[in-house]
Amino acid sequence: MRLGTFTLHPQAHNRRVTEMVRFVARVAYLGGGFAGWQRQREARTVQAVLEAALEDVFSRPVPIVAAGRTDAGVHAVGQVAHFDAPQRIPPAGLLAVLNTTLPRDVRVLSVAIAKPGFHARRSARAKRYRYRLAWGEPLEPWEALRTWELAARPDIAAMRDALAAVTGEHDFAAFALKGHSGTGQRGTVRLVIGARLTHRGRRVAIVVEGDGFLRGMVRRLVGAVVEVGRGAARPEWVRALVLDPRARPPAPTAPPHGLTLEVVRF
Amino acid sequence: MRLGTFTLHPQAHNRRVTEMVRFVARVAYLGGGFAGWQRQREARTVQAVLEAALEDVFSRPVPIVAAGRTDAGVHAVGQVAHFDAPQRIPPAGLLAVLNTTLPRDVRVLSVAIAKPGFHARRSARAKRYRYRLAWGEPLEPWEALRTWELAARPDIAAMRDALAAVTGEHDFAAFALKGHSGTGQRGTVRLVIGARLTHRGRRVAIVVEGDGFLRGMVRRLVGAVVEVGRGAARPEWVRALVLDPRARPPAPTAPPHGLTLEVVRF
Repeated sequence: MRLGTFTLHPQAHNRRVTEMVRFVARVAYLGGGFAGWQRQREARTVQAVLEAALEDVFSRPVPIVAAGRTDAGVHAVGQVAHFDAPQRIPPAGLLAVLNTTLPRDVRVLSVAIAKPGFHARRSARAKRYRYRLAWGEPLEPWEALRTWELAARPDIAAMRDALAAVTGEHDFAAFALKGHSGTGQRGTVRLVIGARLTHRGRRVAIVVEGDGFLRGMVRRLVGAVVEVGRGAARPEWVRALVLDPRARPPAPTAPPHGLTLEVVRF
Repeated sequence: MRLGTFTLHPQAHNRRVTEMVRFVARVAYLGGGFAGWQRQREARTVQAVLEAALEDVFSRPVPIVAAGRTDAGVHAVGQVAHFDAPQRIPPAGLLAVLNTTLPRDVRVLSVAIAKPGFHARRSARAKRYRYRLAWGEPLEPWEALRTWELAARPDIAAMRDALAAVTGEHDFAAFALKGHSGTGQRGTVRLVIGARLTHRGRRVAIVVEGDGFLRGMVRRLVGAVVEVGRGAARPEWVRALVLDPRARPPAPTAPPHGLTLEVVRF
């Protein structure tokens, strides 16, 4: 191969091209404009929008892998994703150019070079979700887009009581979306490290941290806790659902727009 | 006209139907999903979305009039609008049903019965706009959607200096959008009651209150002040533009997504 008057050894050239490095990014998005994280044929998804921006920057396809595939309408402020790309651009420059390229409902909050062996999904040890609830007065749109507005003030003490039943290692099959039969040897067993409710004025947040979640699990946990808050069920019912997946009635599913993936721990 | 065994006098029936009352509403919206306030044939506009919700509620067309027609992409938290509708529903109930009907990027924050003679546009005495700027670190999407992100920290003292020139009654023709030749006997003269800059960390807000604004005026005032903040122009240039609409170069226009209509005074 000739470069001016020099001849470059073909292997040297190849090595330069394939000097890839793994980047890790913290990503935030407003879920309302997306059919979830995962790439789909027709729909606008977070993965597709990010991969399009990365392809713009690197002039080649750059697949991206997230810690967790959030569902349609769910937001993130602490999603973590990795991608392998040529080490041409320092992370700070990559951060700036990505945010200039991306639509404003997806933001890359930080970029760094990953530690050896890092994998956004497989290295994740725990995730924390926040579900926002409000009642009694209209919210401004930037809050309404991320909050489930209840018709009336819920019974917060009863909700706390119900939520207390959730912590610990349980078979959460009763809270999985239909058709989700679990994964690997753990099946539908998951460890909820902590579940708490914070209350201030006409707002409540339910914060749940666990080593992993079944698909739809946080939204059905919240759905059950809100049933209790509305007086439509007793805290014991949530306890029963955690102990016995066949307990009845099943937990309803809270709408996706109240839910935000807040933190992924590694 | 027969109603069961009773006969209703036709005029009594008509009077009941035409017993209209003027409602006044405070409206908030995230502008990114709208081609501005004003109804257009094809595009999604705030007026059209609100009128569709009102028609749903009242089962008849209900035109709505805003204090100010915000441009495409501009947000509001204190837009005020009036509409005439049958007095069937108390304001609190109307507020609740409207927000259930509306998409979450438009919210009605309050509804009341208007004072006699009230007209959202003609009764407005002053308006206050807020323009958000930030730099130096990526914003979360719910902030990025409402903030102009600058490439570097601006010279805030110089911006304050430039902004001071704006207050008072001036011919703001230099800040009108092209083709706007003014309205009524005042032409392009407007009174800016106050213009201030607040600064905290990596954020700046430019807050401008006036008795009225030419189309595009706030965005071009901000565009000029940011030129000064970037070091591309001196505060005296803004002063010159305020005194002489033919001064050069003309003010650039700041992007719409940083701008929010905050308060309308009556």
